[in-house]
Amino acid sequence: MRANPIRLKWQANEPVVNGWLSIPHAFVAETMAHQGWDSLTIDMQHGAVDYQGAFNLLTAISTTQCAPIVRVPWLDPAALMKVLDAGAYGVICPMISNRAEAETFIGATTYPPRGQRSYGPIRGLLYGGPDYASQADETIVRFAMIETKEALDNLDEILSVDGLDAVYVGPADLSRALGCEPRFDQETPIVVEAIDHILACATAAGKPAGIHNGTAAYAKCMIEKGFRFVTIGSDARFIANGSRAALEEIRRVPT
Amino acid sequence: MRANPIRLKWQANEPVVNGWLSIPHAFVAETMAHQGWDSLTIDMQHGAVDYQGAFNLLTAISTTQCAPIVRVPWLDPAALMKVLDAGAYGVICPMISNRAEAETFIGATTYPPRGQRSYGPIRGLLYGGPDYASQADETIVRFAMIETKEALDNLDEILSVDGLDAVYVGPADLSRALGCEPRFDQETPIVVEAIDHILACATAAGKPAGIHNGTAAYAKCMIEKGFRFVTIGSDARFIANGSRAALEEIRRVPT
Amino acid sequence: MRANPIRLKWQANEPVVNGWLSIPHAFVAETMAHQGWDSLTIDMQHGAVDYQGAFNLLTAISTTQCAPIVRVPWLDPAALMKVLDAGAYGVICPMISNRAEAETFIGATTYPPRGQRSYGPIRGLLYGGPDYASQADETIVRFAMIETKEALDNLDEILSVDGLDAVYVGPADLSRALGCEPRFDQETPIVVEAIDHILACATAAGKPAGIHNGTAAYAKCMIEKGFRFVTIGSDARFIANGSRAALEEIRRVPT
Amino acid sequence: MRANPIRLKWQANEPVVNGWLSIPHAFVAETMAHQGWDSLTIDMQHGAVDYQGAFNLLTAISTTQCAPIVRVPWLDPAALMKVLDAGAYGVICPMISNRAEAETFIGATTYPPRGQRSYGPIRGLLYGGPDYASQADETIVRFAMIETKEALDNLDEILSVDGLDAVYVGPADLSRALGCEPRFDQETPIVVEAIDHILACATAAGKPAGIHNGTAAYAKCMIEKGFRFVTIGSDARFIANGSRAALEEIRRVPT
Amino acid sequence: MRANPIRLKWQANEPVVNGWLSIPHAFVAETMAHQGWDSLTIDMQHGAVDYQGAFNLLTAISTTQCAPIVRVPWLDPAALMKVLDAGAYGVICPMISNRAEAETFIGATTYPPRGQRSYGPIRGLLYGGPDYASQADETIVRFAMIETKEALDNLDEILSVDGLDAVYVGPADLSRALGCEPRFDQETPIVVEAIDHILACATAAGKPAGIHNGTAAYAKCMIEKGFRFVTIGSDARFIANGSRAALEEIRRVPT
Amino acid sequence: MRANPIRLKWQANEPVVNGWLSIPHAFVAETMAHQGWDSLTIDMQHGAVDYQGAFNLLTAISTTQCAPIVRVPWLDPAALMKVLDAGAYGVICPMISNRAEAETFIGATTYPPRGQRSYGPIRGLLYGGPDYASQADETIVRFAMIETKEALDNLDEILSVDGLDAVYVGPADLSRALGCEPRFDQETPIVVEAIDHILACATAAGKPAGIHNGTAAYAKCMIEKGFRFVTIGSDARFIANGSRAALEEIRRVPT
Repeated sequence: MRANPIRLKWQANEPVVNGWLSIPHAFVAETMAHQGWDSLTIDMQHGAVDYQGAFNLLTAISTTQCAPIVRVPWLDPAALMKVLDAGAYGVICPMISNRAEAETFIGATTYPPRGQRSYGPIRGLLYGGPDYASQADETIVRFAMIETKEALDNLDEILSVDGLDAVYVGPADLSRALGCEPRFDQETPIVVEAIDHILACATAAGKPAGIHNGTAAYAKCMIEKGFRFVTIGSDARFIANGSRAALEEIRRVPT
Repeated sequence: MRANPIRLKWQANEPVVNGWLSIPHAFVAETMAHQGWDSLTIDMQHGAVDYQGAFNLLTAISTTQCAPIVRVPWLDPAALMKVLDAGAYGVICPMISNRAEAETFIGATTYPPRGQRSYGPIRGLLYGGPDYASQADETIVRFAMIETKEALDNLDEILSVDGLDAVYVGPADLSRALGCEPRFDQETPIVVEAIDHILACATAAGKPAGIHNGTAAYAKCMIEKGFRFVTIGSDARFIANGSRAALEEIRRVPT
Repeated sequence: MRANPIRLKWQANEPVVNGWLSIPHAFVAETMAHQGWDSLTIDMQHGAVDYQGAFNLLTAISTTQCAPIVRVPWLDPAALMKVLDAGAYGVICPMISNRAEAETFIGATTYPPRGQRSYGPIRGLLYGGPDYASQADETIVRFAMIETKEALDNLDEILSVDGLDAVYVGPADLSRALGCEPRFDQETPIVVEAIDHILACATAAGKPAGIHNGTAAYAKCMIEKGFRFVTIGSDARFIANGSRAALEEIRRVPT
Repeated sequence: MRANPIRLKWQANEPVVNGWLSIPHAFVAETMAHQGWDSLTIDMQHGAVDYQGAFNLLTAISTTQCAPIVRVPWLDPAALMKVLDAGAYGVICPMISNRAEAETFIGATTYPPRGQRSYGPIRGLLYGGPDYASQADETIVRFAMIETKEALDNLDEILSVDGLDAVYVGPADLSRALGCEPRFDQETPIVVEAIDHILACATAAGKPAGIHNGTAAYAKCMIEKGFRFVTIGSDARFIANGSRAALEEIRRVPT
Repeated sequence: MRANPIRLKWQANEPVVNGWLSIPHAFVAETMAHQGWDSLTIDMQHGAVDYQGAFNLLTAISTTQCAPIVRVPWLDPAALMKVLDAGAYGVICPMISNRAEAETFIGATTYPPRGQRSYGPIRGLLYGGPDYASQADETIVRFAMIETKEALDNLDEILSVDGLDAVYVGPADLSRALGCEPRFDQETPIVVEAIDHILACATAAGKPAGIHNGTAAYAKCMIEKGFRFVTIGSDARFIANGSRAALEEIRRVPT
Repeated sequence: MRANPIRLKWQANEPVVNGWLSIPHAFVAETMAHQGWDSLTIDMQHGAVDYQGAFNLLTAISTTQCAPIVRVPWLDPAALMKVLDAGAYGVICPMISNRAEAETFIGATTYPPRGQRSYGPIRGLLYGGPDYASQADETIVRFAMIETKEALDNLDEILSVDGLDAVYVGPADLSRALGCEPRFDQETPIVVEAIDHILACATAAGKPAGIHNGTAAYAKCMIEKGFRFVTIGSDARFIANGSRAALEEIRRVPT
C-alpha cells in the first residue's frame, strides 16, 4: 500500500504543514496540491463540499504526492466509511467529547475484528494499492477534534482509545466553549492554556497534536510549541485575502 | 433596466477595478463579489468554466452590486448570445483582429435592427428588469481583445465599429504576437509601446481601454497611463500565491 | 447582521407567504425569488435537493430580499449545521415528536453556551454580515414540524423548549398519523381539529404557527385562522398544474 | 427503430402539442413528460441548458412515450450531431435564413451519402434501437426556424431543401425583424401576415409548420389556422405564472 | 401502482438477476438497464454515488422495465426515505445485526400506521403511479444485509420482523466478520457454511435470500442452492475486467 | 515539461495502446487509467462528455502516467484550445478533409509565431510544468481523423501540413463514406484497401497512423500492419459486453 506521507513525517519527528479545501472544484484542489503542502484537508463540515465534491477533490489531490485528508461533517459511520472508501488517507472527526464517541469514531474507521468498517474501498484500492484490505488500518490517520468543554474534561480517556492516532484543535469552537469569541490564532490566556493543555496531554500519550491557524506566523509558533500538524488558512481565505490586498493597494491614495 | 456600474464609472471618468474568475463554483464568485471589486469577469476562454459554471457564477455575482462580465471562448455568436441571455452585463471577445470580426461581434450582441441577437434573455430579464428588450443594447458593454499583430495593424478600423464599447489588452498573447515571452506586467519595450499605442488609439476614438495585470502595482500604473478598466490577478492566482507565501514563511529558516 | 424578513413580518404581526423549492437548479430559485414570495423554503426532505443543490439555491435566493429557509431531511445535527453555514435564515425540522428531539434541534442550531452549533458559517458570513457569530442565534428562525401522533401528545413540552421559534404543520403526514389519506388542504374533521389544536397551543405559547397548503384559497383561510406562515404549492406543482391546464384547454372539444 | 410520435401524428394529420424545457434538471423534464405533452423541446439556445443538462433531460423524457426534441444554440454541426447522438428525435435550428444554411443544417443531421453526419449515436442506439444507423435519417425530424427578414425573402428556397421536414416560427425574433416588440401571441398585423405567409408557403411545400405560443388559447387558434406543431409556455413560465397567480390571490383584498 | 418485477419473479419462484451500479452517470445506468438485467442496484454505500447521482440513475433505469434498487450507506431513516421518494422499488440496508435495527429499517420504509415513513414521494409518484400512497408499502422490497457476527447470532429474530421482505448476503464483510479475507465467490468452508445457514434460515422463514457474486458461474451455483436474488459484478468491474482482458490479449507474445 | 509517453513510444518505434472514455465521471477515468493503457482518449465528439466532464477526466487520468488525449467534437479553435489548456497531451480532430482544414487544426493548437493558439494553459501548466509555454508545441500530439471521401482524395496534402503529427482512422465513418455499413474491425475489401492506403501514405510521410478497433484481436493485426496507435473498445462497451456475457452465462440452459 502507498505509504502515508503524514506517518512518514511523524516518524521523522517533522511537522506536517496542511492546507485546507472548502471549495468543491477539482481545479482548486489540484492548484493547491501543486504548491507544496504536505497534506490537504477537504472540509465537509464547514466547507461548501459534499460527497461528490470530496470525491473530485480526492482525485485531484492524487495527481501529486500530497496526502489527502477529509474532515467529515459529524461523527457518522456512513460518512466516515464513505470518505475512506473514496481514498482519504486521513480523517478528522469534529467534536469528540468522550471515550464512547472516540470509540465509535475508531470503530467506524477500522476493519473487523478491531472495528466495524464495511469492506468496499472502491477508490481506496486504486489510490492505495491492491493490499489495501490488510494495510489500511495501519496506514490511514484518525484525528479527533478537541473543541468542547466536555472533551477537555475527558481528554485522557479520549487519548487512551486504541487506534486514535492524533488530536486536532479547533480554536474557534474551543474559544466559544470557553466563553470567548470564536477565532483562530488565539492570544486569550484561557484559550491558550487549554491549547497548551491539549498539546501536553497528547504528547504525554505519545500522540501528535494538530491545530488550525489563521497565519503562517502563528502556525510556526505552534510547531515550536510541539504541534506536529498545522493548518494555515484555506483556499477561500486566500481568495478573500488576496482580493482585499489587491484592492487596498490599488485604491490607496499616495501620501 | 438595472444600471451598469461599468458605464456609471466611465461616465464619472473613474477606472473600473475588475476581478477575474476561473473556477466554476458559486462560492468562489460570491466570495470575490463581496470583497469590493467593481466588476468580475468570468473567463470561459482560459478558465475552467463552461456555460453551466458561468450561469452559477453570474447568479452568485448578482447577490451583490458588482457588475458581471464574461469572456467568451471565441468569436462565436452562440456563445455570445447565451452568456448575455444568462445575465452578463459585459462581454469580452478574444482575438478581434479586423473590422469584419468586430462587426460580427457587435452584430451578435445587439438586437435587430442594428444586429442579429436572438431574443430570449431568460436570466437577463430577472437580473436586468422587465425593460431589458429595449435597454440591453445600450446597457451591456462589449470589449474587443486586441492581442494579435493583425489587430495592431487594423486598430483604427476595429475601433471605428459602431457599438464596440471598449478594447481590452491581453498582454500574454500580445507579447507572443510580438515575439516575446507570454507574461503580464510587461516591461519589454516593444510590448510596452504596443500597449501604449492601443491606449492612445482607443482614447482618440473615445473608447475606454482595459488591460489584464498580474499585480495591483502595475495595474495602478496602467490607470495612471489612462486605462479605464484594470484586471488584477485571478481567483486561482490568489490561491496559488497565498499558498506559496504561507509555505515560504513557515519553512523559512530563521537567520 | 442582515435582518431576517420573517422576524420583521412577525413583529408587525403579518403573515409570511412562503414558496417551496424542490428542484435543485439556481434558475428555478431565482425565478421564484423574483415573483414576490416573502420567503422560499428549499426542501431537502422530500424535494430532489441535496447539499450542493441547496447551496446553489441559497445563492440564487440571495439575489433578492426573499428570506431563505431550508427543510432538512431529518433531525440530524450535521445537516442542520451545514445548511445554516450555507446561509439559511430559517430551518424546518421534520417530525419533532417530543421535548428531547426539540432540544436536540435547538442545540444543533444554537451556538455555545446555549447550544452546540460548531462555528464556521462559511457562506452565512457573506450573506449575513461580519457580526454573524454574535447575532445568528437571534436572527435565524427554527420551525419544528408537528406531524406525528406523539407530537400532538407532547405539544406543550415541545413548545416550551427555549429557542424554538415556531411550529410548522405538515398536513400530509399529520393526516396519515390520524388514519386519513395524506393530502393538503384538509377538510376531514379529525385533521382539521388537530390543525386547530396546534395553532391554538402555539398561539398560547406565543409562537407563530405555519402550515403547508395546496392552494392560495386554503392558505388564505389559514391566515384568517391565525397562521403566520403559509406555504402554497411548489415549483414542481406549478409546472405540473400549468402543463395540465394548458393541455386541457387545447384539447377541450368546443361545445 | 422506435417510431417517432411526431411523424405518426403528422401522418394522421393531427397537431403535435409541444412543451418547452429551459431548466436543466431531470426532475423537471420527467414531471413535464408525465403530463401528456406529445413532445418536449429542450431549449439549448435561450434556455439555461448545456449539453450535460440536455443529456439528462433526454434521459428523463425517455421514461415516457413523449418525443424528445432539442433546439440547438446555433447552426453548428458539432452541436447538431451531439444532440442527435444523445437521442434527440427532433432538432430545431435557429435563424435559418437561406438555402445554404438550410443545406448545412440538413447535411449535419443526415448520414452519408446524403449528408455528413458522423457515426456514433451513443445514446441514440439505446433509445432508438439497433437499426438506428439505417433508419435515423427518416425517423428524426428537422425544423428550420424562420425568424429573420432574410428568411422571409428566401422562404421558398429554404423549403425546397430536401430533408428539411418542417419550419418553426419564432414570433419574438420575427417581430423584432419586422420592427415590432418581441413577444408571443402576436396580433400586430404585419407580424400576423408574416406568420400566415410562412404557414401558407410551408403548407404549399407539403411541410408542417410549427409556432411558439404564450397561451393555449392562441395555440388553439394556430392549430385551427393549419399549424401542425404548437408550443405552449415553458417550465420556467409555469413556475413564474403559478407563483404570481398564487401571490395575487392570497394578497387580494376582499371587496 | 406499477408492479414490482422483483415481486413478480419471486411469485413465479424465479431468481432475480441483478446488476450493480457504482458510477453516478445516467449513461452508465441506461446502458446497463438495456442489457437485460432484471434489476439494478445503485450502491450508495461503497459506490461513488450520492443522492443526486442516485436520482439521475433512478431516472435512467426508468427508461426500461428493469427494477430500480438502492443500497443506502447506512441504517439512516433520512437516507432510506429519500431514495424511496426518488422512486426506488427496493432498498438494501447494510449491517442489520439485530431485531431493533431491522425494526428501525422497516419503520423508516413503511407508512403509518405500521411505520414512520414521511409522505412526499416526489418522483415515486411519477414512476409508480397515482396510487403510490396506498400501494407502496406492499410494492417496494426491503433487503436486510446479513454480514456481521452479531447478525448470524440474531438471524431468526431479524427474519421474524414483519415487513422485512428479504435478506442479502455481503460475502466480503461476512468473510471479514468470520476472520477470513474479504472476497466474493467464497470457497472457505466457514464462510460457505455461514452463507448456507443464512439461506436455510431465510427459506425457513419464507423470505428470499440474495447474494453478491463476482462471477456468473458462482451466481449460477447460488441460484441452484436456492438463492432468489443474485448480483454479478458491477459497472466498474466490467470496465476494469474488460480493459485488462484487452490489454492482456494485445500484449501477449505469440507462442 | 513532463514528457509525452506517446512520443516516447513512437521514438522507440512501439505502438501506443489507447483506451477510450465516453462516460464523464472521474471514477471511470481513474479506473481505466490504472489498468495499464498507454493513453486514454476522452471522446467529446460522440461520447457523453462535455468540457466540465473532460476536465474531470483529465484530472483523473493525471493520477497515473497514462497520456491524456481528447477528441474534440469538431474542427473548432475554441474547443481545441480549451482542451489543451485543460492539460490534454494529444488532440484528435474529426473529419479533416483537406489542407485548409488541417492547417486550421494545426494553427489552433500551436502558439505564435507558427500558429494562433491563445496563451493561458490554466491546467496544462500544473500538469506539464512551468516551461509549458516554450515546450507545448513540440510535446503535444495532433491527430487528424481521415474518414471522408474528400480526405482520401487529399491525403497527401493533409499529411504534408507541418505540425500535423499523426492521422487516425475512424472506420465507421470511413465505411459510410465508402457506401458500406458503419462498423469497426472491417473486412470489407473496399474499406480495408482504404485503411491500408491511409497507413501507407502516413508511413511514407513519416507520420504514425492510428485506428479505432472493436477487439484486441483486430487491433493486434493493425499493429502488425504498421499502425502505431490502436484504440480498443471503450468504457461503455466494456460495460455492455461484460453485462451481456454475464447474463448469457447465467441464463444459458445446461446441455
